[in-house]
Amino acid sequence: MDFEYDERTTALMKQLRSFVDERVIPSVSTFHEELDASDDRWAWSRTPVLQTLRQEARDAGLWNLFLPGEGGAGLTNLQYAPLAEITGRAMELAPSTVNCSAPDTGNMEVLEQFGTPEQKEQWLKPLLEGRIRSSFAMTEPAVASSDATNIETRIERDGDEYVITGRKWWITGAMNPDAAIFIVMGKTDPSAERHRQQSQILVPRDTPGVQIVRGMHVYGYDDHDHGGHAEIVFDQVRVPASNLISGEGEGFAIAQARLGPGRIHHCMRSIGVAERAIELMCERVSDRVAFGRPLSEQGVIRDWIAESRVRVEQLRLLVLKTAWLMDTVGNRGAHGEIQAIKIATPSTVEWILDKAIQAHGAGGLSQDFPLARAAAGIRTLRFADGPDEVHKNSLAKRELRRHTSGR
Amino acid sequence: MDFEYDERTTALMKQLRSFVDERVIPSVSTFHEELDASDDRWAWSRTPVLQTLRQEARDAGLWNLFLPGEGGAGLTNLQYAPLAEITGRAMELAPSTVNCSAPDTGNMEVLEQFGTPEQKEQWLKPLLEGRIRSSFAMTEPAVASSDATNIETRIERDGDEYVITGRKWWITGAMNPDAAIFIVMGKTDPSAERHRQQSQILVPRDTPGVQIVRGMHVYGYDDHDHGGHAEIVFDQVRVPASNLISGEGEGFAIAQARLGPGRIHHCMRSIGVAERAIELMCERVSDRVAFGRPLSEQGVIRDWIAESRVRVEQLRLLVLKTAWLMDTVGNRGAHGEIQAIKIATPSTVEWILDKAIQAHGAGGLSQDFPLARAAAGIRTLRFADGPDEVHKNSLAKRELRRHTSGR
Amino acid sequence: MDFEYDERTTALMKQLRSFVDERVIPSVSTFHEELDASDDRWAWSRTPVLQTLRQEARDAGLWNLFLPGEGGAGLTNLQYAPLAEITGRAMELAPSTVNCSAPDTGNMEVLEQFGTPEQKEQWLKPLLEGRIRSSFAMTEPAVASSDATNIETRIERDGDEYVITGRKWWITGAMNPDAAIFIVMGKTDPSAERHRQQSQILVPRDTPGVQIVRGMHVYGYDDHDHGGHAEIVFDQVRVPASNLISGEGEGFAIAQARLGPGRIHHCMRSIGVAERAIELMCERVSDRVAFGRPLSEQGVIRDWIAESRVRVEQLRLLVLKTAWLMDTVGNRGAHGEIQAIKIATPSTVEWILDKAIQAHGAGGLSQDFPLARAAAGIRTLRFADGPDEVHKNSLAKRELRRHTSGR
Amino acid sequence: MDFEYDERTTALMKQLRSFVDERVIPSVSTFHEELDASDDRWAWSRTPVLQTLRQEARDAGLWNLFLPGEGGAGLTNLQYAPLAEITGRAMELAPSTVNCSAPDTGNMEVLEQFGTPEQKEQWLKPLLEGRIRSSFAMTEPAVASSDATNIETRIERDGDEYVITGRKWWITGAMNPDAAIFIVMGKTDPSAERHRQQSQILVPRDTPGVQIVRGMHVYGYDDHDHGGHAEIVFDQVRVPASNLISGEGEGFAIAQARLGPGRIHHCMRSIGVAERAIELMCERVSDRVAFGRPLSEQGVIRDWIAESRVRVEQLRLLVLKTAWLMDTVGNRGAHGEIQAIKIATPSTVEWILDKAIQAHGAGGLSQDFPLARAAAGIRTLRFADGPDEVHKNSLAKRELRRHTSGR
Repeated sequence: MDFEYDERTTALMKQLRSFVDERVIPSVSTFHEELDASDDRWAWSRTPVLQTLRQEARDAGLWNLFLPGEGGAGLTNLQYAPLAEITGRAMELAPSTVNCSAPDTGNMEVLEQFGTPEQKEQWLKPLLEGRIRSSFAMTEPAVASSDATNIETRIERDGDEYVITGRKWWITGAMNPDAAIFIVMGKTDPSAERHRQQSQILVPRDTPGVQIVRGMHVYGYDDHDHGGHAEIVFDQVRVPASNLISGEGEGFAIAQARLGPGRIHHCMRSIGVAERAIELMCERVSDRVAFGRPLSEQGVIRDWIAESRVRVEQLRLLVLKTAWLMDTVGNRGAHGEIQAIKIATPSTVEWILDKAIQAHGAGGLSQDFPLARAAAGIRTLRFADGPDEVHKNSLAKRELRRHTSGR
Repeated sequence: MDFEYDERTTALMKQLRSFVDERVIPSVSTFHEELDASDDRWAWSRTPVLQTLRQEARDAGLWNLFLPGEGGAGLTNLQYAPLAEITGRAMELAPSTVNCSAPDTGNMEVLEQFGTPEQKEQWLKPLLEGRIRSSFAMTEPAVASSDATNIETRIERDGDEYVITGRKWWITGAMNPDAAIFIVMGKTDPSAERHRQQSQILVPRDTPGVQIVRGMHVYGYDDHDHGGHAEIVFDQVRVPASNLISGEGEGFAIAQARLGPGRIHHCMRSIGVAERAIELMCERVSDRVAFGRPLSEQGVIRDWIAESRVRVEQLRLLVLKTAWLMDTVGNRGAHGEIQAIKIATPSTVEWILDKAIQAHGAGGLSQDFPLARAAAGIRTLRFADGPDEVHKNSLAKRELRRHTSGR
Repeated sequence: MDFEYDERTTALMKQLRSFVDERVIPSVSTFHEELDASDDRWAWSRTPVLQTLRQEARDAGLWNLFLPGEGGAGLTNLQYAPLAEITGRAMELAPSTVNCSAPDTGNMEVLEQFGTPEQKEQWLKPLLEGRIRSSFAMTEPAVASSDATNIETRIERDGDEYVITGRKWWITGAMNPDAAIFIVMGKTDPSAERHRQQSQILVPRDTPGVQIVRGMHVYGYDDHDHGGHAEIVFDQVRVPASNLISGEGEGFAIAQARLGPGRIHHCMRSIGVAERAIELMCERVSDRVAFGRPLSEQGVIRDWIAESRVRVEQLRLLVLKTAWLMDTVGNRGAHGEIQAIKIATPSTVEWILDKAIQAHGAGGLSQDFPLARAAAGIRTLRFADGPDEVHKNSLAKRELRRHTSGR
Repeated sequence: MDFEYDERTTALMKQLRSFVDERVIPSVSTFHEELDASDDRWAWSRTPVLQTLRQEARDAGLWNLFLPGEGGAGLTNLQYAPLAEITGRAMELAPSTVNCSAPDTGNMEVLEQFGTPEQKEQWLKPLLEGRIRSSFAMTEPAVASSDATNIETRIERDGDEYVITGRKWWITGAMNPDAAIFIVMGKTDPSAERHRQQSQILVPRDTPGVQIVRGMHVYGYDDHDHGGHAEIVFDQVRVPASNLISGEGEGFAIAQARLGPGRIHHCMRSIGVAERAIELMCERVSDRVAFGRPLSEQGVIRDWIAESRVRVEQLRLLVLKTAWLMDTVGNRGAHGEIQAIKIATPSTVEWILDKAIQAHGAGGLSQDFPLARAAAGIRTLRFADGPDEVHKNSLAKRELRRHTSGR
C-alpha cells in the first residue's frame, strides 16, 4: 500500500495545475464575453479563446487525458484521477480545454470500445481531434428513466434503416450546433428480457425528424456555455442500419460500460470543485470582519472549514481507490466502489459548497463567485446516471448478499 | 390555549385560497409571457395581467392584508399569518397581487410608523394604492453588513440637504422602473455609539447621482419578475433634509422595528412554499413508476414525505405563536421567537424542497416546476436580514442569560 | 387561536414546579440510597422516601393528573401536557410521585375504558390509589412485534379459563414485586382477519406458570429504579375467562386506544427532559473556561444552545396542539398528529441531549449528571410502541392520500 | 499509488482474523462468567480464559503488534492498521488478548521513547510481557482539561522526591488491581510558558496517598471488564525524583507524542466495530419479517446499509493514509491527518451503530448484542484526548493558514 502519486502523474499534475491556474482561469471572463457577443449563444466551442487554449493544451500534451490506450494519453484511471480533479478547479472551461469534458468523453469511450471501423473513422476521429462535439440521449420526460425498462423511445428496423421515434430531455451539450452526433438509447425489442430490450444508435444532428425543442434550465442556469441540456423530439428519424452500435439488445450493456468511467470522471472533477470552494471560503472569511473579529475566528466557520477538509480527504481516497480497482480488476470488479463514490460525492461536495456560499454572504449565491453555479451543477449529479436512491438500493443488496451468502 | 383560527381569518383564508388557486396560479404563465414580450423585462408591475388581478384583489378586499390599523386590512399578525402562507403557494405572483410583497410591505410599515405627514402623502399613499413600488437599500458589497457598524455609506448634512455617498447591492425590486423611492441606510455620525451612527433617508429613484449598476443573480435567476436585486452607486446624491426618516441616529432602531414583521412575513410565505412542495412531491411520486412500483411505495420517499409533514407542522405553530406574541406583547417581547423562526424556517423549507426536487428527478431542477426557483429564493433567507449564524449567536446569549441570571 | 395556558393549568404548573424542584429533585439521591440498601433492588415503590413524597403529592392534589374524568384529576390532555412536562424534569422520581408514570397510566386508562366493574374494583382501584403497580406485556423477542400480526403468544379458551403461552420481553416495571398485575397481549384467533386476531387479558403476577426470566438492559442501565424491563415466559398460565378485557378479538383496538395517550405522555415528559438538558448545558458552559474563554462564548456551543431552543419550542407546540386535538376531535381525529409527535420527539430530544453531554465533557456520560441516563431512555422511544420507520410509513400514506384522493 | 496490503500484512490479517473469530469471540461469554464469579470484578486481567488466550496469542506471534521496532512486532503503522481493525471486531477481549489495548499501548510507547533504562526495566518490560497493567492520569474533574494549561495537579520537587497533589478522573483501567503503574500528568512550573508547565511522572499504584475513589460510568456501564475509569485522589504522594519521565516541562510534548499513535489505534479499532455492526445489521434484517416482507427489503433500511458501507470505506482509507504518513513523514508530518481521523471516526461509527441498533429493534440496546456497549464506547471518543470541537478548531486554523500564507 502506497499513497504517493507516481512520477508521470506528479509531473502532469504540476504541468496541468500551472496551465489551469495561469491560462484557463484567467480566460474564463473572456470566454463568457466572446460567447455573449456571438450569434449563437450555445456555440461555445466556436469561441476564439477556447480554440486558442485547446491548441495550447494539445501542443503541451494535455489532451484526451481521460482515454486509456493509444487513442488517448495512455493514462490509467488512477493517473487520470488527480488530473481530472485539477480541471474541476475551473469547470466552465478546463475540462473542455483538454478535451476531457462530458458527454464527449463517454461517447468517445463507447465508440472506441464498441464502434465499427467506419463509425470510428466518421465520429471518433473528429471527436478525438476536437473538431466536433456529441451528445448522449437517454433520459426521457415521460417516465422514470433510471429504470431502463421504462424507456419509451423506439428504434425500429425498416429494411436497411432504423426508424427512431421518441422524446428525450436533459441531452447535455445538444443545443450547441457543433454537437454533430447523438448516441440515442431506445428499445428495439420491448418484448425481450429486461436488459436486452434496448439498443444504442448513432443519429447525426442534421437528420430529418430531429427537432431540438428547447434547453432545460438548472436552477435558472441554461448552461449555454456547455451546450445546454436539450429536449429533443425524434420524429420518425431514419438512419442507416449500420449506425447501430454493437448490436440489437446491447444498449443496456453499452450504457453500463459507459457509466463506470463516466461516473468516476464526474467524481474526480467534483473533488476539484470542492477544493476550490474551500480555498474561496478560507480567503473570504480571512478578509471579512464582523462584530470585531475576522469571520475566520468564528467557531462555527472553523467547524465548516475543518469538516470540509475532513470530508474531502476521505472522499478523494475512495475515488482514487476506485480508479485503482478499475485499473486492476476492471470496471465490473469495481462496480460496488463506483456506486459508492457516485453516492458519496454529490452530497459531500454539495455540503461544502453550501458552507462556502454561507461564508460568502449573499455574494456567494451570485454571478460574482463560481459557487452557486457549481452547487447547481453538483446538484444534478444526484440524478445523473440514476438518482442516489437507486444506487443505494443496489449497493445495499450487494452488501446484504455478502453477509448472508453462506446461509 | 386554542389552536383554531378565528372566524374572520377562516373566511378570509377560504376566499384567498380560491382566489390564489383559481385566479393567480393559472395566470402565472401569462404573466411571464407578457413580461418576456415587454420592452423592459424588469417592469413586472406593468404587465396587464397583474394589473387586472390586482384590481380584482382590491375589489374583493384582499388588499394590504399585512398592514394593521386603518391604512391596511386591520388584521392582527396572527390573522394575517395563514393568509400570507396562502400567498406562498404562488410566490411569483400572489404576494404582489394582494399588495403584500417585500420590500414594499416593510417600507410601508416604516412610513406608517415613522413618516411625517408629508412623507406619508408623497410615498405611503401611492404604495398603499399600488401605484408605485419601492426598495430598501441596506446591504453593501464591501463589508459584512450584518454588523450595522460596518456600513460605509455616508449621509452627510450640507445645509438644507443630505448628501448620500456609497455602494449598495442586493437592493430587491430596484431594477423595476416603477420602484420610485428607495429607503437608504447610511451613517450620519460614524463617531456616535454603535447603534446611533445610522440613519435612514428617502431617495427618489430619479435623483441625480443614483446609478443602477446591474442586477445580482441568485443561482441563475435574475428575479426580473420581482424587480431583481440591484447594485446601486449613490454618488453625491442630494436630497432635501426633510427626506430623513424620524431623525439622525434613528436608523438602527427603524431597521429593528422593520425587521420583526418583515421576518415573520417571510416565514409565513415560506410555509406556503413548503406546503406546495409537499403537494407536488406527493402528486409526482404517485404518478411515476420505477422498478415495478409507484415511487410512492418506496420507503425512502415515504420517509421524506413523513418528515416533511412533521417538520412543517412544528414550524407553522412556532410562526403562529410568534405572531400571537407580536400581537399581545409586542415586537420587542417576541424578539426571541422572531429570531427562532428566522433560524428555523429557511433550513426546514430548504430540506423539504430538496426532497421534493429529488422526488421529481431532473425535472425538479428545471423551469417546468416551481421547486428550484423556490429553493433559490429560500436559500437567500439564510442571509437576508442577517445570516443564521448571527441570529443563533444572539438567541444563545439570551438563553444563557435566562439560566445564569440569578448567579 | 390563543397560546396562553388557562388559569387552572397555570396554577397547577406553578404548584407542581415548586413541588418537583423543592421536594422531588432533592430527594433523588435519598431514593437511590434507600433502594441500593433494600433487599430487593427492583422494589423501588417500597422506598420510604417515595412513599412520603407520594402522600404529600396526594394531599396536595397532585395525583392521577393524567386521568380525565372523575377517577383522575379531571384535566384535559391540553391541561395535563405542561404538567407532564414538568415531571420530565426529574424522570427518576417525579412521574411516579404523582402516580403518572408509565406503564401504569396506560393500564389504568385501559381498565377505566374497557374494564368490567369487577376488573375495576380489583385492579383499577388499587392502581389509582397507588397501592400496586402493573405492567403491559406486548413485545416479543422472536418477532418484529411492531407488526401485531407477528405476535406469537397464544391465549386459548379452555372451559372457564384462558391458557396463555408465550415469551415476552421489555415488560417495563415487571421486575418490581409490587407489579401485581400484567395486561398481556396475545392471539385468541390466529385465523381471524389481521386486526381481530389479538386479545388482551389480565394475568396476576403470582399465577402459576408466570416466570420472570431476567431484566433487559438499556445500554448499561437495568432501570431497576423503575422496575426494569423483564423477559417473561408464560408457560401454560391459566386465568379465569373473566380476566379477558372487553372481548375476544379486541386486543388490537384496545392497544390503539391505549397508545394515543401513552405516546403523548411520553412526548410531554420528554420535552421536560430536553428543557432540563438545556438548563444544565447553559450552566455548565458558563462555568468552564478553556483556551482563555468560558465555553459559553464559543460559537459552536452557542449554535447548539440556539438550535436546542428553536427545536424544543417547535416540538412543544406540536405536542400541545395534538393534546388539544385529542380533547376536541378525539384520539382518532388526532391520529396523524400523534404519529407526528411520536416521530419528532425522540430525535429532537436525543439531539439536544447529545449536545448537552458534549458540552459537559466526559462527565456528561457519567452517573454525575442525569444526561446519559436520559439519553438512553429517550433512545428507547425510537422503538417503543413501534419504531419510527413504521410510523413514518403510515404518516406518509395518510399524506399521500390527502393529495391524491380526488384523482 | 497502490491500495493492496503487503504480503506480511495479508498473512497476519488472515491469521489474526481466524484467531479472533475462532478463539476470541467464542470466549467472550466465558470471560464474563469468570469475571462475574471472581472476588474482584475489576481484575479482568486475572481471568483464566484471558490468560490462556494471551499465551496462545503470544505463541502464535500475535503479540505487541502495535509496537514498532525490536520491542514489539516490528510492524509499521500501515501494517498494524488492518490488524487493529480486526481486534475491533471483539472490543471486549481481542485487543487485550494480543497485548494491544489502551492505555497500555500508549504507556509502553512513552516508556520506549522517553524512559530511562531503569524505568524501562522496571515498567516497560513487564508491560511488554503482559505481567502488569498501567494507566494514564491526565483528565481532571474540576476543569476543562482539553486545555493543558488548565491542569491543576501539582508535581513539586522536594529534595530527591516529587510530591504529587491533585484529583483525576476517567483514569481508564485503574480500578484493576493489576494496574501497577500510573503515568501522571501535572504541573511542575505553573509560571512557565504555556506548553512547558507540565511534566509526567511514574506513580506506582501502591504509593501512600494514592486513593482510588470510585469508578466512573459510561451510559450505565462501569467497564469493569477493562478496569473501569477511576477517579483518583493524589494526596501528597511522594515518589523518587527519578520517576520523572524525560524532564521537567516535557509533559506536554510527551502527551503530544503519545497521542498520535493512540488516536490512530482508536480509529483503527473503531472501524472494526463499524464492520461488525454492519454484519450484525445485515444478518438481523435478513431474519426479521414485518408487514409481509423481510426488513432487508425495506428501502429505508437499505439506505442505512448503503450509507454505512459508503462511509466506512472512506473512513478506512483516510486512517490507512494517515498510518502511511506517520510511517513516511513522521507523526508531526501526519498531524493534520491524525486530527482529521480523530474528528471523522467517532461520528461515522456512531452513526452506523445507531442504525444497526435501530435495525435490531429494542434488542439492539440490550445486553444481548454488542451494539449499545460499542455505541457507549465510541461516544467517549468524541471527548477522549480532547473533544471534537478542539480538534476542529485546530484543523481549521491549519487550513486557513494554507490558503492565506502568501498574503
